[in-house]
Amino acid sequence: MLHPRREPEPTVAELGEHEILKRLRRFCADDVGDDGAVRSLPAGARLVVTTDVLVDGVHFSDRTLPPKALGWRAAAVNLSDLAAMGATPMGLTIGLTLPPDTLWVWVEALYQGFTDCLRQYGGAIIGGDLCRGSHRSLAITALGCVPQALYRNRAQANQMLVATGVHGASRAGLAVLLEELDAPDSFAQTWIKAHQYPIPRFDAIALLHKLQNFDCIAGMDTSDGLADAVIQICRQSQIGARLLRSQLPTPPGLVETVGQSTAEQWTLYGGEDFELVLSLPPDIAEGVISELPSSQIIGHTTSEAKIRLVDDMTNGPDIQLDQGQGFQHFSN
Amino acid sequence: MLHPRREPEPTVAELGEHEILKRLRRFCADDVGDDGAVRSLPAGARLVVTTDVLVDGVHFSDRTLPPKALGWRAAAVNLSDLAAMGATPMGLTIGLTLPPDTLWVWVEALYQGFTDCLRQYGGAIIGGDLCRGSHRSLAITALGCVPQALYRNRAQANQMLVATGVHGASRAGLAVLLEELDAPDSFAQTWIKAHQYPIPRFDAIALLHKLQNFDCIAGMDTSDGLADAVIQICRQSQIGARLLRSQLPTPPGLVETVGQSTAEQWTLYGGEDFELVLSLPPDIAEGVISELPSSQIIGHTTSEAKIRLVDDMTNGPDIQLDQGQGFQHFSN
Repeated sequence: MLHPRREPEPTVAELGEHEILKRLRRFCADDVGDDGAVRSLPAGARLVVTTDVLVDGVHFSDRTLPPKALGWRAAAVNLSDLAAMGATPMGLTIGLTLPPDTLWVWVEALYQGFTDCLRQYGGAIIGGDLCRGSHRSLAITALGCVPQALYRNRAQANQMLVATGVHGASRAGLAVLLEELDAPDSFAQTWIKAHQYPIPRFDAIALLHKLQNFDCIAGMDTSDGLADAVIQICRQSQIGARLLRSQLPTPPGLVETVGQSTAEQWTLYGGEDFELVLSLPPDIAEGVISELPSSQIIGHTTSEAKIRLVDDMTNGPDIQLDQGQGFQHFSN
Repeated sequence: MLHPRREPEPTVAELGEHEILKRLRRFCADDVGDDGAVRSLPAGARLVVTTDVLVDGVHFSDRTLPPKALGWRAAAVNLSDLAAMGATPMGLTIGLTLPPDTLWVWVEALYQGFTDCLRQYGGAIIGGDLCRGSHRSLAITALGCVPQALYRNRAQANQMLVATGVHGASRAGLAVLLEELDAPDSFAQTWIKAHQYPIPRFDAIALLHKLQNFDCIAGMDTSDGLADAVIQICRQSQIGARLLRSQLPTPPGLVETVGQSTAEQWTLYGGEDFELVLSLPPDIAEGVISELPSSQIIGHTTSEAKIRLVDDMTNGPDIQLDQGQGFQHFSN
């Protein structure tokens, strides 16, 4: 039987920069084409800016992220930082470094992922740069605007600490993708989705804007882990915290699959769940957890500047949370 | 004779991410430390955003750019895009990828270069990301604001084309640094400086703001070469141009050093001079060249949509300017 001969997919080197930029136009805002993009902010709004770099082999790999998921995730990571500031997305700039042998279909799927995420949460691709390099990397800057920003350093003692969702799912998804973990299929699919398609929590921000002004509440996203977020908020607010071990937001099925100790480690230090940790007055905290089904109280803040994980039944030996266990890019 | 033993300079891997970020704080705006930076725009101003990625071995190398010059140049490249939009700098975000064996002194000098440039032209480092990779690269996003932006597509026929300075000097400086060109010392130093420490032309923008509103003028910077800038402005404005060969803004000494033909090539296609090309009504053009000593008229725009280099003495055979000779990142 004869098969029609298929043309091989073109590489970016075969297409050349001008052709690639022409093809990428359809993913971008209409006015791309000057030395810079021009945008107006709503009256009274302030600008919020955040940047993330993702490098092949460090933050992603073909094994764990197909290009469309990579595009979604790269956009979501940056949008999550905007959400953490209480901001609404305006747009992204994308600095893309590609080896010459990268296939165009890979680039196209990547941009499809970016735009799928932006279509869902707002904003557009408003600029970028494309260049040759030996390794793939993405440098993304997200721009948003906010009437009043949410900061890390506004937490006060005796507030409730709220996590907007479970933690450790992204780490578990990575383990499944790397074939380091064998999990029941339904959990495996949920965790893989948490790793590949994280969701920036603009729903929590919309709710907070309704419930409270941002003067005496604090928040940040949990890109570097739940423990790291609690530590950062407490340090910058010069307070402490007690996290309740029984209240750790561990994903369903994780303890059963990896055991209590690993599940706790991944929940506290796994990172990349892109949820929010918020420090809120008790009444607001209750409002949030009643209206945001995935959220839960994980502990409370204290005037004593220590951050502890406590066993709430016994008040037994405290565990000092260790920032060193978070993700450090230059340590081995 | 005994020499005191010198401690080896630490690498970024030895310092770790937290220590590096701590050390980089002194180069950054005071409020770095949240998920995003928050900025207000002056009343009525619009935001301008631009991004550039610079990769080791593609856009720079230790042979041609010591770290302080690299920092200056990386900042200046982005500020030049802001100048090309008529904007005033607000700040930069810097996404830095480094191999673990990078010395801290290299990083420190790089940031000194960034801040030297920002101190001169305005703005501050307002955010960034730091990560590990096999190759050094810088992804920079610059933010500016403008009451009224300068676009590429507003040029009209029968305007004067003005270049704010000489072109080809950066290319010649690169050739000297790569030891491909032997030039008299005074020229060599000037060209190396043009390559390593380019100057964003905010002086030209300040002058234009005084002389004219931006409704029927156009401009862009010449990062991809003088010819490319003329071509882009003409295409987007749907007009043509005649460049006068005798008026090409060739740096003093270049013809004598590399010959007429190479000097012309480098002036038209060398790139990375980061000057501005402006399309201006004749009276404004005269105002600019009389007040901006380095600037000169290089030709004029035409209603016929062809871009030609003409020998103005003879009206002899025209040369069609070729976009393909510009810098293309994926062609070989």
